Amino acid sequence: MEAKRTDVNSLGEFGLIDHLTKTFKSTQKSTKKGVGDDAAVMEFGNLQTVISTDMLVEGIHFDLAYTPLKHLGYKSIMVNLSDIYAMNAIPSQITVSIAISNRFSVEAMEELYAGIHKACELYDVDLVGGDMTSSPTGLVISITAIGSAQADKIVYRSGAKKGDILCVTGDLGSAYLGLQILEREKQIYQESPEVQPDLEEQPYLIERQLKPEARKDVIDYMAKNNLIPTAMIDVSDGLASEVFHLCKESGLGAFIEESKVPLHPSTEEMAIKFNMDPITCALSGGEDYELLFTISEEDLEKVRYMPDVFIIGEMAAKKDGITLHSSGGNIHPLKAQGWKHFGNE
Amino acid sequence: MEAKRTDVNSLGEFGLIDHLTKTFKSTQKSTKKGVGDDAAVMEFGNLQTVISTDMLVEGIHFDLAYTPLKHLGYKSIMVNLSDIYAMNAIPSQITVSIAISNRFSVEAMEELYAGIHKACELYDVDLVGGDMTSSPTGLVISITAIGSAQADKIVYRSGAKKGDILCVTGDLGSAYLGLQILEREKQIYQESPEVQPDLEEQPYLIERQLKPEARKDVIDYMAKNNLIPTAMIDVSDGLASEVFHLCKESGLGAFIEESKVPLHPSTEEMAIKFNMDPITCALSGGEDYELLFTISEEDLEKVRYMPDVFIIGEMAAKKDGITLHSSGGNIHPLKAQGWKHFGNE
Repeated sequence: MEAKRTDVNSLGEFGLIDHLTKTFKSTQKSTKKGVGDDAAVMEFGNLQTVISTDMLVEGIHFDLAYTPLKHLGYKSIMVNLSDIYAMNAIPSQITVSIAISNRFSVEAMEELYAGIHKACELYDVDLVGGDMTSSPTGLVISITAIGSAQADKIVYRSGAKKGDILCVTGDLGSAYLGLQILEREKQIYQESPEVQPDLEEQPYLIERQLKPEARKDVIDYMAKNNLIPTAMIDVSDGLASEVFHLCKESGLGAFIEESKVPLHPSTEEMAIKFNMDPITCALSGGEDYELLFTISEEDLEKVRYMPDVFIIGEMAAKKDGITLHSSGGNIHPLKAQGWKHFGNE
Repeated sequence: MEAKRTDVNSLGEFGLIDHLTKTFKSTQKSTKKGVGDDAAVMEFGNLQTVISTDMLVEGIHFDLAYTPLKHLGYKSIMVNLSDIYAMNAIPSQITVSIAISNRFSVEAMEELYAGIHKACELYDVDLVGGDMTSSPTGLVISITAIGSAQADKIVYRSGAKKGDILCVTGDLGSAYLGLQILEREKQIYQESPEVQPDLEEQPYLIERQLKPEARKDVIDYMAKNNLIPTAMIDVSDGLASEVFHLCKESGLGAFIEESKVPLHPSTEEMAIKFNMDPITCALSGGEDYELLFTISEEDLEKVRYMPDVFIIGEMAAKKDGITLHSSGGNIHPLKAQGWKHFGNE
């Protein structure tokens, strides 16, 4: 059975926006006006407003050969919510702007918006606006997330102090390895379409790549337990790059204990199959969307009982640099690789 | 002399963002944290927050063959500020996300940001965040503008009442004709590069296309004179399309007096040279970034003395439809053409 294909041009811009957003209902008290005027209107009382924006480009950030559009929609929201949580704020609204070429059908856009809708529901954010336009070639998604928090609860990258304890949530490097599996299978498929894809029975790694979750649970837990990190950032470009950001903004150095960096067993297994060092996947892999944060020593007990959080190092004086203490007892200067969507790809 | 060309890859994403945004200073009291963390932080006290976003795609919204990058940067901000003003709100922050292929140099991006910077200065808005990524092909610019106003000052599309007077600022159709001149010259250049471009000595039309201004002056004037429109929208897709939006959202009809629609003499002159009806350019042309608004009859005197504002018609009952009263005394149903960036271009 052939899937239905409606040309996006048949609906027109406003028709398509109406069509795709009609199932979204605003539930946030702060949303005064959502889609349908020149701008959305929000009211936050005495809270501070936090805003973050990210752009995802076909061929750079995602490959539709192995990325289901529904997952892509979901992930594009996660990427942005993750930034709001990294401020210790609660996201409440998003805007979604999309450029599409006419090789995409209305049904394809519905899939994308189904993923966006799911994310909005699960994370309790309202879609309040956006733009939709044509593109000469690929798909571009630009999302802005808006959130809020009390001024004294907002956590910056710059607040870490020497001696603060460095913590990270979840596990690192798995999304990167999921991407390696998908890329390998795509290449094999292109060379020999008759070969069945071999996803290595690694649903965890694949899911970490295709359907990451922002750490709302961590922020909620911190709020309940009166834990306010001294500094925080989300891990989107690999642990090393994020540690560099925290150190730069806080004017400090840091050390990381290699053996404490959380790795999933699947990550270790697949890294070795790919002839990679698992720690390198964690340090430079990216797309984990975990939270890296520092706490003052007096909050140590609060973190010890926190689920899915790992103490991986400590903030040091700037002059001591940023170092990795290896399991073998060696100390290496940490290198920030990164710019992964801006290099010689 | 050959212009300097620095590959964008030589700076890396964060290096390029730092490089391009370091001359931007936040001046808004409401800006608590600008570029450099996971999200910007703003605080608006008891005001309502208004947000608007637009995406501009190379080959769809602009053609770099005749659009200087500095003008493009400036215009991309105007497009967004215009939406905030159309809510009767004051813009205070913007985020700028950009996807660029490596055919663009750092110098080219500097030109783009010079235009953005100029717009931020002149309109008193802070650049507080954004994203920068590579693109496989063209340039994509996605901008989100944030503003605020007291709740009882915000003007929606839906507030018009039957009998309200329909007004428009500036003049219409000129940006569209500017585009026609530029497109014609591009085609001639492609066919015969030796022919000198003939811009018809029409700097006004060209400027309206390449360097439009958002109507901050109109909103400021209204505030000073205690004039709050009953409904408002910015004219980005042509007058007809915007009248349809106002009527749809307000549940009304409307009539427009053809002879009252403001046209610049250059618009009339060039429309005739292009074998077009000038009123059609105003109704369907787009990119004017003027304000279309309705006022209750009791505010008529306030509008009579307002500079650069024209009364063009009246809101009617829904059953009377949306009509154009022609100079010859005929009444035509108005047609909304539009979707200009989403059709069969």
